[in-house]
Amino acid sequence: MKEQRISSSVIKRLPRYYRFLGELKKQGITRISSGELAARMKLTASQIRQDLNNFGGFGQQGYGYNVEMLYDEIGEILGLSSLTSAVMLGIGKLGVVVAENMDFKKQGFKLVGAFDVSEEVIGKTVAGIKVQNLSELEVFCKKHKPKAAFMCVPSSAAPELAEKLIELGVVGFWNFSHYDIRLKHPDVFVENVHFGDSLMRLSYKIKNS
Amino acid sequence: MKEQRISSSVIKRLPRYYRFLGELKKQGITRISSGELAARMKLTASQIRQDLNNFGGFGQQGYGYNVEMLYDEIGEILGLSSLTSAVMLGIGKLGVVVAENMDFKKQGFKLVGAFDVSEEVIGKTVAGIKVQNLSELEVFCKKHKPKAAFMCVPSSAAPELAEKLIELGVVGFWNFSHYDIRLKHPDVFVENVHFGDSLMRLSYKIKNS
Repeated sequence: MKEQRISSSVIKRLPRYYRFLGELKKQGITRISSGELAARMKLTASQIRQDLNNFGGFGQQGYGYNVEMLYDEIGEILGLSSLTSAVMLGIGKLGVVVAENMDFKKQGFKLVGAFDVSEEVIGKTVAGIKVQNLSELEVFCKKHKPKAAFMCVPSSAAPELAEKLIELGVVGFWNFSHYDIRLKHPDVFVENVHFGDSLMRLSYKIKNS
Repeated sequence: MKEQRISSSVIKRLPRYYRFLGELKKQGITRISSGELAARMKLTASQIRQDLNNFGGFGQQGYGYNVEMLYDEIGEILGLSSLTSAVMLGIGKLGVVVAENMDFKKQGFKLVGAFDVSEEVIGKTVAGIKVQNLSELEVFCKKHKPKAAFMCVPSSAAPELAEKLIELGVVGFWNFSHYDIRLKHPDVFVENVHFGDSLMRLSYKIKNS
């Protein structure tokens, strides 16, 4: 494996390869040529070969790719086999939707705690986890040492909370709030889900067509 | 303006520029140098100059960028000033969260209709719109001619629905379902919000650190 040298644009595409290969596996397909995979994914065969060469070149001339091997390897690179403990902050409507619609274990995480400040949700259960008062976060993190935080809080609450979580050992954020965590903390890992940015890009595409 | 030649990676960054410039405007900042904007956005000054040169080069040596002018121009390029009519499909928990948390008009859209198949939600109001039975979609679209659809339906319902919407004149999809609309319809515009892909990328970042 040559993970160290994988470019960020390849990383961006990895989950899509992983999903596609998972589909092929489900359909009982055991091997596939770069040409056919390209046709299914609407990419070029040469881009597929280039991308997948990053992972040790499982393709063989005249044979194609071994679907299961490639699927497992990409899953391994994505780090899905060992689960990172995560806490969810903010169990409002968005938090509940996210918690209940995701199969975190399939994506490499284990949700171990859920926190909110609202009396309305504290004590309720979401995705099998009892929602705790935010005031218990520190004690909880010192005990369970989560490495990741899912931020479903309003933007106004995000800066202080991010600060606190980083102090408590969190190194990665899945961030739904409109606060740019990396600006103040360039050393943490962040994946932003910015609904607004995505919608503006759609606006661009439609209007510049 | 030279929109035609703007690369897709610049387009990806545009909403972020737009948000940042909006913040600066709110703070009463009227002009900013590429160096200072770069420092705030954690980019390099040269990347900022390169990116913003695409929009007619508003920067002036020794003056910097006129914040309001640049903000307006980027908003214009993103097509935010004229609203695209959109329908929302699927008013489950996710649909409600999306509808109620977004200010669609700020992002270039006007929600004109909402549809579901569940008797539990039909007739209810979401984001000021009465939820209609999906069976009324065709008549509605022929009358109101929405150009965009927000897809908050389960993956299983997405293929048939996308097909129908395209027939009815929809050209752009904001897609939360796990169905790759462009594979069958490469000619429509799609912005996917893939929670799972985003979470897998976070897994990669944490585990390969």
